[in-house]
Amino acid sequence: MITEIITIGNEILLGQTLDSNAAYIADKLTEVGADIRRITTIGDGNQDIVNILKESMGRADLIITTGGLGPTDDDLTKSAICQTFNRKLEYHPDILKLITDRYSRRGMVMPDFVKTQADQPEGSVLLENPIGSAVGIVIENGDKRVISLPGVPSEMRAMIDQSVIPYLQKHKDSFNIIFRNVQTFGTFESYIADMIRKNNFTHEGCELAYLPSLKGVVLRLTYRGDDQAEGEKLVAKYASELREILGDYYIADDGRDLVEVTTDLLKEKHATVATAESCTGGMIAAALTDIAGSSEYFLQGAVTYSNEAKTDVLDVPQEILVDHGAVSGETVYHMAKNLRGKAGTDYAISVSGIAGPAGGTEEKPVGLIYIGLAHPWGVDVHEHVFGTDRQINRERTVYHALNHLRMKLLEK
Amino acid sequence: MITEIITIGNEILLGQTLDSNAAYIADKLTEVGADIRRITTIGDGNQDIVNILKESMGRADLIITTGGLGPTDDDLTKSAICQTFNRKLEYHPDILKLITDRYSRRGMVMPDFVKTQADQPEGSVLLENPIGSAVGIVIENGDKRVISLPGVPSEMRAMIDQSVIPYLQKHKDSFNIIFRNVQTFGTFESYIADMIRKNNFTHEGCELAYLPSLKGVVLRLTYRGDDQAEGEKLVAKYASELREILGDYYIADDGRDLVEVTTDLLKEKHATVATAESCTGGMIAAALTDIAGSSEYFLQGAVTYSNEAKTDVLDVPQEILVDHGAVSGETVYHMAKNLRGKAGTDYAISVSGIAGPAGGTEEKPVGLIYIGLAHPWGVDVHEHVFGTDRQINRERTVYHALNHLRMKLLEK
Repeated sequence: MITEIITIGNEILLGQTLDSNAAYIADKLTEVGADIRRITTIGDGNQDIVNILKESMGRADLIITTGGLGPTDDDLTKSAICQTFNRKLEYHPDILKLITDRYSRRGMVMPDFVKTQADQPEGSVLLENPIGSAVGIVIENGDKRVISLPGVPSEMRAMIDQSVIPYLQKHKDSFNIIFRNVQTFGTFESYIADMIRKNNFTHEGCELAYLPSLKGVVLRLTYRGDDQAEGEKLVAKYASELREILGDYYIADDGRDLVEVTTDLLKEKHATVATAESCTGGMIAAALTDIAGSSEYFLQGAVTYSNEAKTDVLDVPQEILVDHGAVSGETVYHMAKNLRGKAGTDYAISVSGIAGPAGGTEEKPVGLIYIGLAHPWGVDVHEHVFGTDRQINRERTVYHALNHLRMKLLEK
Repeated sequence: MITEIITIGNEILLGQTLDSNAAYIADKLTEVGADIRRITTIGDGNQDIVNILKESMGRADLIITTGGLGPTDDDLTKSAICQTFNRKLEYHPDILKLITDRYSRRGMVMPDFVKTQADQPEGSVLLENPIGSAVGIVIENGDKRVISLPGVPSEMRAMIDQSVIPYLQKHKDSFNIIFRNVQTFGTFESYIADMIRKNNFTHEGCELAYLPSLKGVVLRLTYRGDDQAEGEKLVAKYASELREILGDYYIADDGRDLVEVTTDLLKEKHATVATAESCTGGMIAAALTDIAGSSEYFLQGAVTYSNEAKTDVLDVPQEILVDHGAVSGETVYHMAKNLRGKAGTDYAISVSGIAGPAGGTEEKPVGLIYIGLAHPWGVDVHEHVFGTDRQINRERTVYHALNHLRMKLLEK
């Protein structure tokens, strides 16, 4: 099923909105076997929408569009669809009733112009929107299909899950793509590539791609073919070979990332953790609690941004702060050790650093970060030197802190 | 300067990576006057790259590609460029020296295969990469230009800022687009649209678009034309009219979002804040400290996830937790009030809620959130009922908490 995604919206062309819709659609549709060949973003112009619809119809069997279905003035997709496929708008009293009901359930009055949401291209299949007023539109044109969804991410996501995938599964093609992601953390793409070469790793019958990010390099194995069992066998075999080669850099190959692997280890070992953060300002706690059920292992966190807070909340001795500074191995040592005692947890993570962009000195440059880890057998202190970008330094620190915890949890 | 962006990478088509590069390029290039008409994502296939380059050359004056320039096996852009423009690869000893130096400065040995980075299409202009080994390539073809950049976001961003924009400014077209974003928070797109209609707001000579997100609806005013002074005057006039109409929902129209406006108000008033978080797990503290210089107003935060932490760290009375529960107005009242006293700040924000997906009851459903705000004149408690999605509930809570703080800071 050759598929193209079209996202409509000037805001994306202007770089003011990240196109997270295309990524969501691509991810979900790939899982049900769609072969996505192209993603195109165009602006809110009627003729642009008509042109790209015609172009894509020449290449793909399935086209998904998002954006331009709301009732406000800049929403043009519906008329472009009517023009492309030569259809008229048709009034649907049942849709108007659904929308009116939704507003009245929330005790709100429906603004008058929202009524245009009840007009839909004639002969189209309509897909329910569980959380908004814009329904989805399917135009079936011979063997080809165009599915148009609203652009508001929460509505679009709900519709993909609850309406589009069930609709597509009725028309599903044979399975034609299998992939496995090997998540790594702790080293560079070029080093991993070198390790793989030196170990004479081959991946016949699969593609291997490197996807670097702050969360670590992902090695993606992709099988394209008709033999699903063979595909599953190949990616499993190669993933397990990569695991051997990667050693401590291997995180998982079952879709979990570093955060999930670390929190799963905490749950498995019935261990608890607390966090004491300075430069990351709560991001480690936020990452640890991002997962439902996190109260099982996460008890408390302290964001001790000022020196006073480090002393008042975590009893870091005044003379440590004076002699060594807030950004020092000594400070994170006391932060982690004292918090572990106060919180009564098995582990405590602490961080202090110079996130930047300002605040660095010759001796302590921007990017210098200390991570403390108090554990049942003592306290470890790690020093890192990252770059000059504040956001990147904060994120890197979160992942490195979690990785130190993961490594400790894996120790015998 | 009609512009298209092409991002290359199977990982984007598979939905495994968000295309943040395109957004960054679009944002930065729009600022220097590029008129971006289309963004296309294609896979790592040589022929696909050649095809899209030829297509885009037929429509645009400037084409920016990202991805596929690294030394690993899946990087194919360079050969596709050579094929499209009929060029050979040329060896550049100076590039090899730059790369070798970069590795040796970090005390690392350069893997052998990285050497291919020194081969570049003949007759191309090369753009320096300040942080990585893949240089950028400019092909000048008559009046048209193709600029190819690596796909690693940090490298791509540094190159846009430090190499591409200076290069383009030498060839800059007349200014042809001016926009102004009016950031709102606290109500729905349809309500804003209704307010605007009822106030007979017109925007002759400008486009008006609605961009809803969890951070609030942005109203984007766009002027397209040659008269820069007239454009600036129009968007300023309409923005100020919208400000009047929007009242408390108006956040800013100078590019700042709710977080920046709130932290700027804190700085302006020399006020300090502390945070006590349960369901948001540190996200409010993280948002407040995302901005350089945040130590001026942010002193400390507590992530009191367990009931014990609420009692131990914030002295929430045991009987309050027993009688009213951790998710209650009473609990956030004590959390905010006590933290403000302990931290010695002017303001303290507290939150407790049921983020979901599980943990709800008939009486206290998933999405029920209490926000406390202790201020110099007392303590306010706000109740919100959001939806069932954990991540969205956590994010919404962050923004609503900051908005309550903003409103309080604006009170006389």
